[in-house]
Amino acid sequence: MKIAIDAMGGDNAPEAVIIGSIQARDEYNLSLVLCGKEIEIKRILEKNTSNFNNIEIINAEDIISNDDKPVLAIRRKKESSMVKALYAVKEGNADAIVSAGSTGALLSGGTLLIGRIKGIERPAIGSLIPNMSGGFCLLIDSGANVDSKPEFLYDFAIMGDIYLKRVMNIKSPRIALANIGVEKSKGNKLTVETYNMLVNSQLKLNFIGNIEARDILKGEADIVICDGFTGNMILKTMEGTVLEIMKGLKEEIMSSMKTKLGGILIKPALKNFKRKFDYSEHGGAPLLGVKAPVIKAHGSSDAKAIKNAIRQAKICGESNVNELIEESIMRR
Amino acid sequence: MKIAIDAMGGDNAPEAVIIGSIQARDEYNLSLVLCGKEIEIKRILEKNTSNFNNIEIINAEDIISNDDKPVLAIRRKKESSMVKALYAVKEGNADAIVSAGSTGALLSGGTLLIGRIKGIERPAIGSLIPNMSGGFCLLIDSGANVDSKPEFLYDFAIMGDIYLKRVMNIKSPRIALANIGVEKSKGNKLTVETYNMLVNSQLKLNFIGNIEARDILKGEADIVICDGFTGNMILKTMEGTVLEIMKGLKEEIMSSMKTKLGGILIKPALKNFKRKFDYSEHGGAPLLGVKAPVIKAHGSSDAKAIKNAIRQAKICGESNVNELIEESIMRR
Repeated sequence: MKIAIDAMGGDNAPEAVIIGSIQARDEYNLSLVLCGKEIEIKRILEKNTSNFNNIEIINAEDIISNDDKPVLAIRRKKESSMVKALYAVKEGNADAIVSAGSTGALLSGGTLLIGRIKGIERPAIGSLIPNMSGGFCLLIDSGANVDSKPEFLYDFAIMGDIYLKRVMNIKSPRIALANIGVEKSKGNKLTVETYNMLVNSQLKLNFIGNIEARDILKGEADIVICDGFTGNMILKTMEGTVLEIMKGLKEEIMSSMKTKLGGILIKPALKNFKRKFDYSEHGGAPLLGVKAPVIKAHGSSDAKAIKNAIRQAKICGESNVNELIEESIMRR
Repeated sequence: MKIAIDAMGGDNAPEAVIIGSIQARDEYNLSLVLCGKEIEIKRILEKNTSNFNNIEIINAEDIISNDDKPVLAIRRKKESSMVKALYAVKEGNADAIVSAGSTGALLSGGTLLIGRIKGIERPAIGSLIPNMSGGFCLLIDSGANVDSKPEFLYDFAIMGDIYLKRVMNIKSPRIALANIGVEKSKGNKLTVETYNMLVNSQLKLNFIGNIEARDILKGEADIVICDGFTGNMILKTMEGTVLEIMKGLKEEIMSSMKTKLGGILIKPALKNFKRKFDYSEHGGAPLLGVKAPVIKAHGSSDAKAIKNAIRQAKICGESNVNELIEESIMRR
């Protein structure tokens, strides 16, 4: 398998991306197409590996930033590392793509250049949220489709189900609908109609009903489906709350000698706790519904996170996730 | 001023509710109508105060629980403490109502029995969220209107503005729209249209634009407006995340002797930190848009939280919040 890498995307690019890529190549026996500034890529490769086997470089002088408008960037920045990587997939030179760059651009690029799976109206982003029991939950859609119809959410459930079964080895993923109450009558028009579609589905989905946002971190579901606006809201509220709590606690602990000493003593506990929430263990966010595996690695990915995202793209391709999605969508 | 109290609503009712009521009567020079089981109310009053001045009791044998369907409960449970308290306001025997009971029932009861302010199509619940800088933010709507139109959200902004100015003494509250990005083009149809309404408003609202959920706890806005589905999602995600983090940290700290000792030393810091997040300091959630002040105290309110909620109802009534809302709505 050959995977295209957006070598310039992400806060720690290109260094961390290229080092992670080398590790993935060596561990998983892969071919890679690194897209980005050739001179820089070569310099980092030379520093970090003794051989260039199975690594192709496609020069790309431009970079898409988070400030670029996604659709415009994909259309106009033809010389960017992300667009070059997307074209590598589109033209059959690579089987999958990994990028830690702009989520919006990757989403637009995946949809516009690689194209949707037959029958899928809206590709969606699935984010892996670590939970307190050491597992995780796939939140889908976490930002692609801000205005959604019940039919879209139903497709998100189907795609998430196949992804978790094939890529994450979960036998019968528990699928829940993000809602503001657990009763079937709760929520807005969208959730009430989606609930009914899922309950009446002919596909063998393990739909466990509605889930309140406060229960997601408890690990009560493996897949949580929602529209992209709600998903993004949940994700960013969690991120913000974790960040502010940790900052607030630290400030209080640093405010006296006694609590400072306590702070030093609990450090190993904090470290263990943080490891539980470490996104890099679980890899990146898949863009589901497009014809080839597209993995969005976290913007702040280190080499390990990139390596895991590449591994994810590999499993995704090898386990025929997209073919299975197309089959299921035809039967729905 | 005379305030009707749902003496049986909330996890710690009737004891905490009645003790908080006595404290409010004594501190704020108020008249109260306590609605609930007369025998119990009298027993608790006798234990906690030497005089029954300015306290009227209306016997109510029934209780509305959180499991009751809100609209049905209001229509059928005529002998419940909440419905009796609502009727006390409806019939002019009281000027405002405080309840720690079912939010849904209080919302339905406020709208159906007390009635909407002229020009307001949808009353909304405003929740006070403490932030890390020691202040708070009014999240409106936090659950009343799951399917909303831009016009509703615009009214939420107007109501929140008046409420914070008059009841919380904030001169020019910063109003932000909950969204998944800060640019004006971000979000779904609802937020894009609401953004335009707020920018073009003739009223002197201090609209500061979109806010991402992760920035709410930083204290970047005094009022955050959104539809009730999104608001409830934000609120419950925050609650759940705080709870799970605290639980997770505790588990890690208790896992070794060294970290346990550290845990003992940081206790004062934890206590200070928790106080920052103490909802009871800020009082209850106002139901805005109905003809009389309706304050929903937190379900787990202790006496102090009840006392503060009653104080809030008093200020709300005395500062003519509802008259000012009616005036503004006519000018919008």
